Formats: sequence, C-alpha cells, structure tokens
Amino acid sequence: MISGEGASAGGGCELTAGGSMGRPVFGDVNPDIDSERKASSFDVEKLVNFLDGGADQTRMRRYVENIINNDPVFSQENQYFLTPVERYEAAAKGTIHLHRKIKELGWKDDGPEVQFAFRVIGSEMAFRIHSAVFIPTIIGLGTDAQIAKWVPLAKDYRIIGTYAQTELGHGTNLRGLETTATFDTSSQDFLLNTPKVSSIKWWPGDLARAANHAVVLAQLYTKGVCHGMHAFIVQIRSLVDHSVLPGIKIGDIGPKMGFEQVDNGYLMMQNVRVPRENMLSRYSRVTSDGSYIKEGSDRINYISMVFTRVKLISRELIPALSKACVIAIRYSVVRRQSELKPGEKEAKILDYQTQQQKLLPQLATIFALYFMSLSLEAFCNQVNLQIKTKRDLSSLLELHALSAGLKALASESCSAGVETCRRACGGHGYSMFSGLPSLYSRVVASCTYEGENTVMLLQTARFLMKCLARLDCGQPLPQSVSYLSEPISSYCSAKEKTDFFKPFLYTEAYKHRAQRLIKDSGDKLQSLLQSGVEQYVAWNITSVQLARTSVAHCHYTVVKNFVEAMEGLKPEPEIQQVIKRLCDLYALTGILANAGDFLCDGYITGKQLDLLTSSQLDLLALIRKDAVSIVDAFDYPDQQLNSAIGNYDGYAYQHLFEWAQKAPSNAKVDPVYEKYLKPLFQSAQSKL
Amino acid sequence: MISGEGASAGGGCELTAGGSMGRPVFGDVNPDIDSERKASSFDVEKLVNFLDGGADQTRMRRYVENIINNDPVFSQENQYFLTPVERYEAAAKGTIHLHRKIKELGWKDDGPEVQFAFRVIGSEMAFRIHSAVFIPTIIGLGTDAQIAKWVPLAKDYRIIGTYAQTELGHGTNLRGLETTATFDTSSQDFLLNTPKVSSIKWWPGDLARAANHAVVLAQLYTKGVCHGMHAFIVQIRSLVDHSVLPGIKIGDIGPKMGFEQVDNGYLMMQNVRVPRENMLSRYSRVTSDGSYIKEGSDRINYISMVFTRVKLISRELIPALSKACVIAIRYSVVRRQSELKPGEKEAKILDYQTQQQKLLPQLATIFALYFMSLSLEAFCNQVNLQIKTKRDLSSLLELHALSAGLKALASESCSAGVETCRRACGGHGYSMFSGLPSLYSRVVASCTYEGENTVMLLQTARFLMKCLARLDCGQPLPQSVSYLSEPISSYCSAKEKTDFFKPFLYTEAYKHRAQRLIKDSGDKLQSLLQSGVEQYVAWNITSVQLARTSVAHCHYTVVKNFVEAMEGLKPEPEIQQVIKRLCDLYALTGILANAGDFLCDGYITGKQLDLLTSSQLDLLALIRKDAVSIVDAFDYPDQQLNSAIGNYDGYAYQHLFEWAQKAPSNAKVDPVYEKYLKPLFQSAQSKL
Repeated sequence: MISGEGASAGGGCELTAGGSMGRPVFGDVNPDIDSERKASSFDVEKLVNFLDGGADQTRMRRYVENIINNDPVFSQENQYFLTPVERYEAAAKGTIHLHRKIKELGWKDDGPEVQFAFRVIGSEMAFRIHSAVFIPTIIGLGTDAQIAKWVPLAKDYRIIGTYAQTELGHGTNLRGLETTATFDTSSQDFLLNTPKVSSIKWWPGDLARAANHAVVLAQLYTKGVCHGMHAFIVQIRSLVDHSVLPGIKIGDIGPKMGFEQVDNGYLMMQNVRVPRENMLSRYSRVTSDGSYIKEGSDRINYISMVFTRVKLISRELIPALSKACVIAIRYSVVRRQSELKPGEKEAKILDYQTQQQKLLPQLATIFALYFMSLSLEAFCNQVNLQIKTKRDLSSLLELHALSAGLKALASESCSAGVETCRRACGGHGYSMFSGLPSLYSRVVASCTYEGENTVMLLQTARFLMKCLARLDCGQPLPQSVSYLSEPISSYCSAKEKTDFFKPFLYTEAYKHRAQRLIKDSGDKLQSLLQSGVEQYVAWNITSVQLARTSVAHCHYTVVKNFVEAMEGLKPEPEIQQVIKRLCDLYALTGILANAGDFLCDGYITGKQLDLLTSSQLDLLALIRKDAVSIVDAFDYPDQQLNSAIGNYDGYAYQHLFEWAQKAPSNAKVDPVYEKYLKPLFQSAQSKL
Repeated sequence: MISGEGASAGGGCELTAGGSMGRPVFGDVNPDIDSERKASSFDVEKLVNFLDGGADQTRMRRYVENIINNDPVFSQENQYFLTPVERYEAAAKGTIHLHRKIKELGWKDDGPEVQFAFRVIGSEMAFRIHSAVFIPTIIGLGTDAQIAKWVPLAKDYRIIGTYAQTELGHGTNLRGLETTATFDTSSQDFLLNTPKVSSIKWWPGDLARAANHAVVLAQLYTKGVCHGMHAFIVQIRSLVDHSVLPGIKIGDIGPKMGFEQVDNGYLMMQNVRVPRENMLSRYSRVTSDGSYIKEGSDRINYISMVFTRVKLISRELIPALSKACVIAIRYSVVRRQSELKPGEKEAKILDYQTQQQKLLPQLATIFALYFMSLSLEAFCNQVNLQIKTKRDLSSLLELHALSAGLKALASESCSAGVETCRRACGGHGYSMFSGLPSLYSRVVASCTYEGENTVMLLQTARFLMKCLARLDCGQPLPQSVSYLSEPISSYCSAKEKTDFFKPFLYTEAYKHRAQRLIKDSGDKLQSLLQSGVEQYVAWNITSVQLARTSVAHCHYTVVKNFVEAMEGLKPEPEIQQVIKRLCDLYALTGILANAGDFLCDGYITGKQLDLLTSSQLDLLALIRKDAVSIVDAFDYPDQQLNSAIGNYDGYAYQHLFEWAQKAPSNAKVDPVYEKYLKPLFQSAQSKL
C-alpha cells in the first residue's frame, strides 16, 4: 500500500496470516487483465515490498488488512446505498468496535498495527476530529495536569471532543476569528460568547451529534485587553443524557459534497461559563486576578500544523490518487471500445494514446509525491528534534513554507488526477459504484482544508521573497532554496529526444524556471515599490504571479527530490527501471503542461519542445506495458477499493450488474406510479 | 437569463405580470453588495434585455418565472435534504403538475412559455428522456402512421418511454452495440435479445421505475443477415399494473454522482417479441417475408444529434456556469477575509487579484459561449432548411465536425469553470447549500454524455485532416475551415500592452496557432504513413496531438465569433464596453493558459507575453468593478439559484444558518449516542 509512510511505520511483530487479500486466489480472472499481468516487466511483489518499506512491513500490513477485511462490522459493501445519517452511524459503530478490538488484540495505541488499521478503514473512521485534533491539541497546548485529566478519558471515548476553530465568517485567516472568552475575576470563569452570526463556529467534525466537549478557539479578554486566540475546553453536552447544555446551541450544518459520515456542526455560545483551569495553559495562562502571563513561545506549535499537512499528503492524497489509478487502469484494460485496427477485435481503451496520456502521468505523480512525502516527513522529524532537544526554531519557517506550498501542489495534482481518472472511465466513472466520485468529492476538499491552497502558495511566496532579499544582502539561504544562489543556466542543452531522459537535464530546466520566476516576481515587487506603490497594493497586484512562482518552486523541489530518491535507491534493477521511467514521465509531463514557462525566455526552444513531446509519448508506450502491474503493486484489496469496475479479477460489467441488483430501490414499489401515473397509463390500454 | 437561446425564443404575448422575481424589492440588502450595484458602470436592465433578446422576451420570461416560482409544487426549498428516491418523486410530481398547468393556462406545446417554464424547472424535470429523446426519436425515425399512433399518447404521459441505446459494454461507439433484434417470419415478430452481460442496456433515464415503453436500439437480423442498428418500440411494463413483462428484467443502476432525480435503469431481454410494425421504419423496413428494404438515407438524422449537442451548450452548459458565477461573485463581495491594507477592515475577497483571476475569466467564457451557441444554432437551422427544402446534405459533415469539437470545448470549460467557482468559495463551496456541488456534479457529466469529449475532438480532427487533404488538392474548403487556405502570419505585431486589446491582433494569434497545429498534425501523419506505418497506428500515435489540434481550431472559432458578434452589435455603448472587455479577457486568458502553443514557433515572444499578462491583469481590475452587475444581469431569481450564499440580498451567513437549522437530522435523536456512546460517556461523570 502506497502512502508515503511505508519506510517510517513500525518494526517487526508476530505474524499469523500472510498472503495477498482481496484477490481471488483460485478464482477466475478476466483474460484481458490476466494477459497484462503475465507480460509484466517486473516482479510485482518486489515493488509491493519496496513501497511498503520492506517485506516485513508488507506482511504486517496484510495481517492487519486481513483482520479488518474479514470483520463484517467494517464491511463497506453497501456503503453507496446509505444515507448520510446511516453512513455516520456505520462509521461510529466501526470505530467503537475497532477501539475494543485493539484492546482485545493487545495492539499498542501508537503501534504499527493500529496505524495500519486506521489506514485500512480510512475515510470510514468516525470521531476523526476527536482523535486527530481534539486529543493532540490538548497534548500540544495543555499543561501536564490538563493532559493527565483529559487525555485518558478522551482516548477511551468516555468523552468525545471536537475542535471548534473555523467560524461562518472565518477560515484560513485565524486572526479574524470573532468568538470571545472574557475572564470574570469575580467568578474565576471565562465567559464564552458568539457575538455575531458570522462568529458561529461552523464545520467542526464530531460536533453536531457525537461530541460532549469542545476545544474552542476564542479571542481572550482579561481586564478589557484582548490577548489574541487561545484554546478552551468547553463542555457542550450533558454526560448524563447528552442534552445540550444551557447557553449553547448546536446543530448539523447540513449536507456536503463529501464526508457524509461526519457530523460537521455549528456551535453558538451565550455567556457559557468555563472554569479558569480549562484554558489550555502550556504557553500562557491567566492568574486569579486576571493577569495574563505568557510562558515561552507557542510558535513551537506550528510544528503540529506542519505535521498535519505533511501527513495529509501521505495519508489522504497519495492513497486517493493511488486508488483512482488502480480503478481506472484496471478498467481500461477490460473495457474494449472501437476497432483500433479495422476488422480486428475492439481495442482495450488503454491502447489508445489519448487514454495513456490521461492515466499514466497520474502514476508518475503518485511516485513523485511518495518520495516527496518521505523527504518532507524526514525534514519534519529533524526539525522536531531540533526543537525538542535544543529549543532551536531556526528551521521552522523554512519547513512551514515548504510544507504549505507542497500541500497546495499535492492537493491540486491529486484532485485533478483523481478527476481525470474518473472521467477516463466514461459513463461508468459517473456511477458511485466505480468508487471514483467518492474519491474525488473527498480528496478535493483537501484543496481547502488545512489551509486554502492559494493562501498556502502565497505564504510560500512570501518566504521566497524574503529569501531573495537575504540573497541580495549576501546572507546564507536555507537548504531548500539554496539553489537561488546558484548560477542560472541560460539554455537547455538537449539535442535529441533521448536527452530528455537525462534527469540532470530536466532538473536543470525546472531549476531555471523557478529561479527565473522568483527573480521576476522580486523585480516586479521592487519596481512597484520604487514607483511609489504601497507595499500591500504591490503584493496584491503581483499575487497571481507570486502564486505561479510558488508552484514553480515546489515543482522543482518535487522533481529534484524524485531524481535524488530514484538515483539513491539500489533496489532490483527491474524496479529501478520502472521508477526511472515514471520519474522521466513526471518531469516531462510537467514541462509540457507548463510549456510557456520554459519557452518564454528561450530556455527551451520550439524544436526542443517537439523532441520532448516525442520523448514523453515514447514513455507512455513503455509504461503502458507495466501499468497493471504497477497498480497491482499498490496492493489494495478489493474491499478497500470498493469499486465495481476496479476489482482485481477485472470483471467490471459483472460486478456493476451484481451491485445494481442490490440497490434497495429495486425492492420497492414505485411511489410515482401509484400516485401520479396509474390513471394516465390505464387510459392508454384501449389505444394499444 | 443567459442561455444562448434568447434571440431565438418565440414572439410576443399578453403579459400580466412583470418585475424582477426573487429579489427582495423592499427588503434589506447587505451593504457590501449594495455598494457594488451602486457603482455599476452600466444599466443592468439593459444587459438583461440584451441577453434575453429584447425587453419583450424579458417580460415574458419573468412572467413565466413568476408563475413557476410562486407555485409550491415546484419549490426546491428543501431539495438538499432529499434522498434520491424523494428527489425522483418530487421531480415526477412537478412534471405531471406542469403538464396540467400548461393545459390550464392554454400554453402551446412548442410555445415560448413552455420553453421558459422548462428552463426554469431545469434540472428538476422528470421524464426528460421520455420528452427529449423517446418522442423525438419516434418523430425522427417513425413512419407517419407510427407517429400518429405513439406520439399523442406519449405527449399526454399516457405512456412513458425511455431510449435504450447505451449498453454496459458500449457507449459512444454505437456500432459496437450487441443487443439483437431477429425477425421471425413465421410469427411476423422481432425477437429481442440481450446476448451477454456486456449487452445489458445501461443508463437509460426514466427506465428503472417510470417507463412502460422503450425505444430499443438493436442490431437487426433478417434471414441470417445483420443490417446494423435499428430502433424498435418495445413495451416493457404492463399498462394495467405496471408489472414488468415476461422475458424482461429491469432495475435501477444504483447511485450516481448527480442526476439523483433520474431513475437510470438497466434492461435485459430474453426472446421478447415485438410486432413487425414496431420497428421505426421511416428509412428502412422489413417486409413480411423478411426482406430488408432501405428507403432513402438516414444520414438526415444526424441533424437531430447535432441539434442535441448544440442545445446542450445553451440549455445546460451556459446556465450551469452562469449560476455558478452568480453565486461565487456575489459571495466574493460579501465574504471579507484578512486585511489587504494593514489596519483597515478586512477586504472583500473579490478585491484579491488571485480571486479575480479565478472568477472573472468564467464570466468571459459565458459570453463567448453565448455568442457561439447563437451562431451554431443559426448554422443548424440553415443546414436543416437545406436538407428539408433541397435534400441537400452537403453541409452536414461540417456542422457535425464543428458541433462535436465545440461540444467538447464548451463542456470542458464549463465544467472546469463551475468547479473553479465552487472552490473559490472555500469551505462554503463544499456545502450543498451553496448550490455549487450540485451544479458541478451535473455539468461534468456533459463531458461524457452526447459523445465522450476525446472522441468528439478526434472526430473534429478527422474532419480537419480531410480538409487539409482537400486543400492540398486545390479543392474549396467549407466556410468554418476556409482560414486554412489563408496565409499564415509569422509573428505577432504587438508592441505595447494596449495592442492586446485589439481584436484583430489576438484573433490572428489564435488563427496562427490553429493553422500551425493543423498543418503539423497533417505533416506528422503524412510522414508516418510515408515511413511505412499503418494508417491506424499512425492515427493512434498522433491522437494526443490531434485532440489538441481540434481544441485550437475550436478555440479560434469561438474567439473569432466572439469578436464578430461583439463588433456587429450596436447596443448601448455602455453594454458594448462591458462585452468588449469580456471578449478581450476571454482571448487573452486563453493565450496565457496555452502560452506554449503561441511561443513555440516564436509567433509571440516572451516580451510580448509579459505585455499580454499585464493587459490581462488590467482587464481583471476593470471588469471586477462591474462583476456583480454582470451576474445580476443573468437575472436568476433566488429560487432558481437555490444557493444560501448566492442570494440577491448578499446575506450569505444568515441564509447558511437558517438553512442548516432546517436539516432533518437536527430534529432527531442521535442513534449513535443511544447505541454506542451512552455507557462510555456516563462512566466519565465521576471523573469530571
């Protein structure tokens, strides 16, 4: 299973089960897909192990998958027929069941089995905000006493908490949040208030129905002075009967494009009293006389935001695109449409160059992001260590800027990629049974949450502009932008099309593009300022260009990292060949998609672009031969794909037909006929 | 209301009601949106009339909208809370109700009131396949006697028919369909059969629950010979009790990404007997001894397929993008986020250049497609007349090629545009209440139905390659491609940024790109063939380039048409100014998005591209001032937008909050608490 975390997930364990799940070991397989597997240029199991980070990891993962997939409580078999409330209930049931199961099996909370289990159940986990945000926030911002009080209760689901930050009127811009927490010295309480409609907390998951507590982010006021955003633990529902407590209003925010199983809610508070000890006080506290005391810097907490973004790439984005590719590529070798050669059998649609052009670059993106997320995670761990051991925050800004831009790039490309896969499956990609609509509606949310992408790109751009200024002053640059101080090569040296398979050559092209765009943006800002334009105006009217600049920087970073990772690996040569081709494809496809950036200053000539186009098409034809094996190596059991057209056995039509027959609407009498059509139809009898 | 049909919709009528619907005439309006309206550079009502095709049309449309929107049966108020079955039922109820209402009001079947009413109810009409495909197919392919027998019954819903063409295994490639109709001389019946799983009819709308008849497309066999695809009227359910007839299996194909209100179904037939007179026989018939007789050419029927594609642009695509723009632009002036100028009030998000760059080009696309669809419809009518009056089919191929490519271009750009609008609304764009997710999931289907887009583009490419061959032989070219015989200009003459506001200049650039790409594709094909590559292989390995070539051809056609329409109009100068700016924006945005195509042969230099970029950004700032007025001029009543964040009054947050409170889940006891959480929570009481 490809998730960018393979190499970091835990060590060995006793394994009682092995083998590849979800595959019809003795079953029949569609000959059209079987022939693809037989023609593979490499041993799939080797690539599986590589992506898992070793054969031990593969065994462990399959062992956990086996347990989950054989437990009917976790079955997602009829998921596409459920209403949002039913989805929520099924997810809650599964999550509580998993909690018990983990205890039964003696798995450690932070052990590899649990990590694998979470990944298998994936999007169908309930109480994700509770476990992934409420608890970590208390651990991150709470005192030891607060952690000791709340965390054990929360881990056992004896309380369920939500994280109430976003308001109707404010999302990514946290400083604009309007909820207030005013300290009342007389009662030693904070009074929490929702001053306006736009201040209503909106979107928190687990809030509408499940949570009885919330970490509420609010502007802290003591002695009439605002101290900015702080976090408070607020009890919102009774522990006795789950009724909403006085002064509080809670509700569901209504249906969404995805995340049907999550009870996203709204929260309004009117003079809700919270005891002084419920303000999370690791970095600042309020004394009994209302004095506000800061203790150290809470900048250290940026690291958790960064971790969240990095894990987003490995846990949500890469799996979404991987699953979409498995489905679309398997379908594309069993779907036959039109004769390619007149008079012959209809061709597999993956044999059409246009279909290859849609799907195969997505495979390349998966590997690019996989290696990128490994590096990014390593960088995170390193920065975290620096902070923990030396209180050294010096790399935090660089990490923040890098992760912000890469989050944007990764979520954009995975969302676009999933949708491309979906549409490449034609009409069947529009059926929920394909699994693809759900993958899209879920993954595309990531372009907005954890920081809206344009905002993210502009944050990276701000960092790049700062680095440019440092460069001008002769100061050293952080490692990820050190290339800014390297000379800019002025033209691409490719002379024939095979030159474009040289990693050095295309990496240089990406570097050139990023260097040029960063310098151009800096120049534009400078010239605007020098002509008397105010700083904020100059920034705004350069922002479209700045966002593009960030993309170019991130794109270069990803390509360079892909090349380094690929060259640094010494796996089986057959695996390396597959990965090398994907690396080339990623780089060349990106140049073609942004050709203007490479052509506009003559770095690449029109003639070279023709060669490059030809190289890219050659790659498609080569990778096409291994496409099925590559997606097989992602090793998703059928249950996890939950796709009628993406099953391992390749019987897309048969599964679509089977699944349709289970539609509950097929079992019911049609209300429309009884109510509206019966008399009309019966009057036609005499005429026919 | 913008739909590309304004100028062609019917004539005058008695009007009893006027005024703009859905607007709070005496109500309060958010000052943030009010100030936008007051600053408009033009009179909105003038643009409304222009888009409607005259003030009379506007009055007529509003009169119809008023009737529909004040009728509670058509209310879509709680639509986002309904299950698919409830949506289907509501749509059926509304459609039958509308049918009665039309009779009551004495509106003519093909009159303008009915057209407007259909457009108002739009996506919530039921039995669309029945009325838009089943009936027209009988009219198009049936004999006079068949039309006389079936059409009156169908128009009164005394029968409901579906159109069963697509199969599990075949979509756009109709020749591959596998269902058979075998004539049995002894019984004078056709035997209809579904030979394999892949032959099951799949997707027909109105089939799963409503229809009692179907036009079934099947391969006709008589005397052991296959005569290709023909259409048969098959009764599939009893008129007495709606039970499925013997030999037939019908069911729902399960949930989809959109079209929840449509009962898309599957159909299997085993030796289903259909009388000889049920084969639609205008162009071919089977005699009682099983002889097959062709009567004239059925190519004439291509015109109906073309009409369908052209109407798709005006009736589905433009309205979807228009509504998305209304919603996103109104929201973007009431949403305030972050200080643009430090210390000042938070800025309207439409004041950010990045937001303008996302939204305003969508407005330009709407107008580009609006004018294009007017021209295309005129071309259709002209070809139709040629056929009807002179049996002259000579322009059909050209029309087919043009409409195929433009269908692809329009559905791509509208789908991408709607999704851009949706994402530009951040988290609230993810809420169903915004109206945007439904718009997207519906509009994106148009990239697949009525001909999958890549297939469409390649059909256009095939036509272009044929034209190139004709050109080489010195034969005259059809009007839409006559530019191929014009000289290719070799460089762009722009010297300063205002040059890019000259329509001649950018039209030439698009022409150059299309000419070059068409010739390059032709050259590549030629050289492959000359080197001994087989024709079909050559076509396939050129197909990625051919598809791009078609896009360039269509893009040029749209730009040229936009310029001609804009220059040919003499409306109020203030309207012309607005439209001129949008025309410039459309053209320049397209060049930027495809910069590589314009740069690669030096037609546009890097320097010129910088000027162009600057011109495009200048346009954004100008159009931004009128953005709200432009979308107001689309004149959608709130009921039709059905968006909590896109209302005329601009109170996005208030409406979101109101709507959320109506969520049915808010009224229910939480099953999860009772079943799973209660004991856990109660055990926490002693700890807190």
